[in-house]
Amino acid sequence: MKLATYKNGTRDGELRVVSRDLTRCVAVPDIAPTLQAALDDWLEAAPRLKERYAQLNTGQLACVEPFDETRCASPLPRAYQWADGSAYLNHVELVRRARGAEVPESFYTDPLMYQGGSDAFLAPRAPIPLRDPAWGLDFEGEVGVITGDVPLGATVELCARAIRLVLLVNDVTLRNLIPCELAKGFGFFQSKPATAFSPVAVTPDELGGDWHGGKLHLPLLVDYNGRRFGQPEAGVEMQFSFPELIAHVAKTRELCAGSIVGSGTVSNRDRRVGSACLAEVRMIEIIEDGAAHTPFMQVGDTVRIEMRDDAGASIFGAIEQKVVAHD
Amino acid sequence: MKLATYKNGTRDGELRVVSRDLTRCVAVPDIAPTLQAALDDWLEAAPRLKERYAQLNTGQLACVEPFDETRCASPLPRAYQWADGSAYLNHVELVRRARGAEVPESFYTDPLMYQGGSDAFLAPRAPIPLRDPAWGLDFEGEVGVITGDVPLGATVELCARAIRLVLLVNDVTLRNLIPCELAKGFGFFQSKPATAFSPVAVTPDELGGDWHGGKLHLPLLVDYNGRRFGQPEAGVEMQFSFPELIAHVAKTRELCAGSIVGSGTVSNRDRRVGSACLAEVRMIEIIEDGAAHTPFMQVGDTVRIEMRDDAGASIFGAIEQKVVAHD
Repeated sequence: MKLATYKNGTRDGELRVVSRDLTRCVAVPDIAPTLQAALDDWLEAAPRLKERYAQLNTGQLACVEPFDETRCASPLPRAYQWADGSAYLNHVELVRRARGAEVPESFYTDPLMYQGGSDAFLAPRAPIPLRDPAWGLDFEGEVGVITGDVPLGATVELCARAIRLVLLVNDVTLRNLIPCELAKGFGFFQSKPATAFSPVAVTPDELGGDWHGGKLHLPLLVDYNGRRFGQPEAGVEMQFSFPELIAHVAKTRELCAGSIVGSGTVSNRDRRVGSACLAEVRMIEIIEDGAAHTPFMQVGDTVRIEMRDDAGASIFGAIEQKVVAHD
Repeated sequence: MKLATYKNGTRDGELRVVSRDLTRCVAVPDIAPTLQAALDDWLEAAPRLKERYAQLNTGQLACVEPFDETRCASPLPRAYQWADGSAYLNHVELVRRARGAEVPESFYTDPLMYQGGSDAFLAPRAPIPLRDPAWGLDFEGEVGVITGDVPLGATVELCARAIRLVLLVNDVTLRNLIPCELAKGFGFFQSKPATAFSPVAVTPDELGGDWHGGKLHLPLLVDYNGRRFGQPEAGVEMQFSFPELIAHVAKTRELCAGSIVGSGTVSNRDRRVGSACLAEVRMIEIIEDGAAHTPFMQVGDTVRIEMRDDAGASIFGAIEQKVVAHD
């Protein structure tokens, strides 16, 4: 099934079940007022939501409205956890090569993850506020999952069963704040402002054969200022599956229902498919030409992140954001 | 006023107003079912909670129960943000000196902060689960604040006004996982398991003259296995005030109501006052003797963290935790 959250003036918005073709939606206040409420009580709520989804798809419901992506908040407008990985080693290798460093052997077996701020996400069509263009604003196209409860020390198999929903991510990053933050030793903090997610989150069964091995095997379509910037395939070069990333978190603590876990910037070794962030293009320029030419995002620049099924239909709706100045 | 959250089988527990002397409490379902609900609507809820608090202190309420710290969950059993600073530079200096490194000049003007996991906190009397004693389990006694909404780019003055509540923290840390994590460059992640907070959170006005300059000027009392381990003063050597720490977060993103911001391990230069974590004692041993003798926490070890007013009365109740093995 497909779920979204409509803005309604409250902090957590209103849960909506969305038709498979993203044309219609329906509120479900009798099942769960918000997505977090549904996740908190998933075993009870999910079968009822699925039934409603089936009825919506077959035209059996009253009170149906046209689905409007511009009315969407983040599926979880605020969440209790946003833990982001960096599972595409090609991206890591490029970062390292651009500064003349090797990738440690351990990076191929031990995931890189950081804890992101989760208290206030950007809506999928919300502008990206930029206080200082010198901070080096970048987008990062990713895939993410929303989990149920995961106990401390959960196995990879148990983590696989805890994946409730899949969605897309724009992990907004302030590149020029990163070197100083990493030098301080505590990791990303100010360099990771509010993240945006796709309008729609979908259950893994909705992805059919494109979801296997705990990965989503479809190209992530990234447009920058109206032109295709990249379409890297999200499955094959993902070094760690989502269940493995979740198990990495669960090694030392439990995860509560509604935790979001991200893949990191989708990246392929085949450069013909382009990139899902500006930094990667800049690193390739540094490696090939000795200097980066592609500027970071400026006020007015736009990014669009989407994924389409084999028939060309949008699965999650589109993240579509424009940079605006913020005083 | 003083607020706590009783466990009641739900994920967010039940908000309780607690008497100043921590002997009595009362549920307030007509005002707010949970602390997060009160924080979400603070301007509406706070005056009503304060009135109830005054009535509770003067014995004017029915349905009052004895206050029992063992029934408490974390004031926020799960939160949308837990951002922890490292504002006591003495602690940072000891860490660095123990490994022969200098403290960069920027550390005195630019706060160290990391994003902690906030989806599942330990109750103040909950055992600390330990999967592997080799991970080097340590406690860290800290002071924390819970904020209201803070806009992007908020000034220090605005951040000061956004402080809703003050509480104590046990920032549980797995010391031996830190070197590998820091070497990876992404900061703390697995090395920071679930955090615990004091049973009671209090409004700053409750602290009288001990709260000024955005800092809490009282000793933090830390007992380890039943003996006083440290009583460092939390105010005077705090390099960055809470409003400055909050402004550090707000530099690149807004904070949502219910965000928790921590001070970092309280630490004083005067070694006679002891320490608020084991690592600091070990670093002093390394500096003085060339090797650490004090072991990290093992199964059965206990830590108690509390703060008392000038009359000797407990302000926040006590964090009191025992390490238990977790398979």
